[in-house]
Amino acid sequence: MLKPLGDRILVQVDEEKEQTVGGIVLANNAKEKPQSGEVVAVGAGEKAPDGKVIPMTLKKGDKVIYDKYAGSEVKYEGNKYLVMHEKDVMAVIE
Amino acid sequence: MLKPLGDRILVQVDEEKEQTVGGIVLANNAKEKPQSGEVVAVGAGEKAPDGKVIPMTLKKGDKVIYDKYAGSEVKYEGNKYLVMHEKDVMAVIE
Amino acid sequence: MLKPLGDRILVQVDEEKEQTVGGIVLANNAKEKPQSGEVVAVGAGEKAPDGKVIPMTLKKGDKVIYDKYAGSEVKYEGNKYLVMHEKDVMAVIE
Amino acid sequence: MLKPLGDRILVQVDEEKEQTVGGIVLANNAKEKPQSGEVVAVGAGEKAPDGKVIPMTLKKGDKVIYDKYAGSEVKYEGNKYLVMHEKDVMAVIE
Amino acid sequence: MLKPLGDRILVQVDEEKEQTVGGIVLANNAKEKPQSGEVVAVGAGEKAPDGKVIPMTLKKGDKVIYDKYAGSEVKYEGNKYLVMHEKDVMAVIE
Amino acid sequence: MLKPLGDRILVQVDEEKEQTVGGIVLANNAKEKPQSGEVVAVGAGEKAPDGKVIPMTLKKGDKVIYDKYAGSEVKYEGNKYLVMHEKDVMAVIE
Amino acid sequence: MLKPLGDRILVQVDEEKEQTVGGIVLANNAKEKPQSGEVVAVGAGEKAPDGKVIPMTLKKGDKVIYDKYAGSEVKYEGNKYLVMHEKDVMAVIE
Repeated sequence: MLKPLGDRILVQVDEEKEQTVGGIVLANNAKEKPQSGEVVAVGAGEKAPDGKVIPMTLKKGDKVIYDKYAGSEVKYEGNKYLVMHEKDVMAVIE
Repeated sequence: MLKPLGDRILVQVDEEKEQTVGGIVLANNAKEKPQSGEVVAVGAGEKAPDGKVIPMTLKKGDKVIYDKYAGSEVKYEGNKYLVMHEKDVMAVIE
Repeated sequence: MLKPLGDRILVQVDEEKEQTVGGIVLANNAKEKPQSGEVVAVGAGEKAPDGKVIPMTLKKGDKVIYDKYAGSEVKYEGNKYLVMHEKDVMAVIE
Repeated sequence: MLKPLGDRILVQVDEEKEQTVGGIVLANNAKEKPQSGEVVAVGAGEKAPDGKVIPMTLKKGDKVIYDKYAGSEVKYEGNKYLVMHEKDVMAVIE
Repeated sequence: MLKPLGDRILVQVDEEKEQTVGGIVLANNAKEKPQSGEVVAVGAGEKAPDGKVIPMTLKKGDKVIYDKYAGSEVKYEGNKYLVMHEKDVMAVIE
Repeated sequence: MLKPLGDRILVQVDEEKEQTVGGIVLANNAKEKPQSGEVVAVGAGEKAPDGKVIPMTLKKGDKVIYDKYAGSEVKYEGNKYLVMHEKDVMAVIE
Repeated sequence: MLKPLGDRILVQVDEEKEQTVGGIVLANNAKEKPQSGEVVAVGAGEKAPDGKVIPMTLKKGDKVIYDKYAGSEVKYEGNKYLVMHEKDVMAVIE
């Protein structure tokens, strides 16, 4: 399994929704890029300047909305994930 | 419901006002982009470097004026919101 | 009324002075953009990193001189104001 | 009178020296832009992150040399001054 | 042996995987640049502003995934390594 | 005399050395711009964020080597000096 | 001797290795620019914000590998050195 480092989280991105116009499925570049996903792993937390670790706010299973430029894509065992800093998450869906 | 993370707030943007010239409604790009809205949710507050959480100043229901470049648009259950940091709010309408 | 957030102030900008050449009033773009005004409202003060609020130096009624690039214009009930950070004020007229 | 805010000082700029070549006074753009002047007012001092005020080093009457890009020009009662941060002063003439 | 300084780590980059299309091995520039490797040495840790050393999180032998722009390449005794800051590591493979 | 402010020093730049090729003195733009000089005055020291003054390391009379882009030129009583921050000095010649 | 200031070190750069192709020595611009050298002098250490000096990690005699853009070249008594900040050193050869 992938364990994010520091204040990072690992996000499984929601499936892209297909857009249809009058029943016609639009090609890939017309799809909305999703900005939501599920947290599948969280880091231990960021180290403060004094060396202490600040606990994470998010936990595994949280549904999150993030900025469209957030995160780096990583592939692991055939799956794609986004790794991002917790602070790049804008909101949690409750 | 969407719960903003950290020092973020969720803002329901005021309706755009239509501009009329001699009774003629102007097309969309001539409308004033509103810079005001209502706070519909607030985060728990930003973490200070020592890990403590700084309480929010704004609360649900506040009418706010924000910078025109503030925030990121998010869609949730058919509604559009702005998510922004509390510090991007310039003033509260009292 | 508008209540500025944090270390911001609300400034009512002085009227632009008309410039005349030989008694002829110059067109608008030749006027000097004023860099002075009156403080009509002040925020509660900036939060320090430890969460404490630093009191404001300026108060309502102060006549101030500010940098020509300072502040954002906001409209409220038909009036135009500038909202700026207290640190953008260069001097107080005493 | 103008009272600078924070760690700012108000400087009355020295008169520009005329340059002459063989007794001919050169036109204005050939003059040396002065980088020295006299401090006519000082602020109360910058607020440190903990809210305390750091006392000023300079005082009224000091003759100072400053960087040629330092400060903003302000006009007050027919006179031109420079408002700059104390840290933009390079040296004091003793 | 190379001993990284401060909060740096020395990474032995995983072999690039060859990509094949219908059994044909693609030329080098079509290969995926690997973003994973094994930590072969770690520094003593970064010095905090107060001079104390913050212990490292990673240790020798950790399999890591890093940002594709992370690190500087160094050659030592015929081998190529990446030296990067610990914070450039996105996740550990557990 | 000029008294540098804060953590600045006043440097009297070493004379430029003439370069000769086969006994021919090269024109001015072929000379090496010197990066060394003698400290002729030092400031009282930089103020730390808490308002305390950090004592200077350099003292009058020190021969220093500085970065070629360091400092601002000032003229005083017919002499040219460089005013630079102490941290722009790379090394002392002992 | 040159004494580096603050957290700087003085590095004697390793000789550039000549590259040969089939016994032919390549011209200068085909040589690898070395990124290693020996520390010949170290500063007293950087001053922390509170004025305390943070001790150096490196010492005279250390063989170091540094980033290819690190440091400024200085000449002293006919020799060329690099002066760089200790944090620009990537690894020590042990």
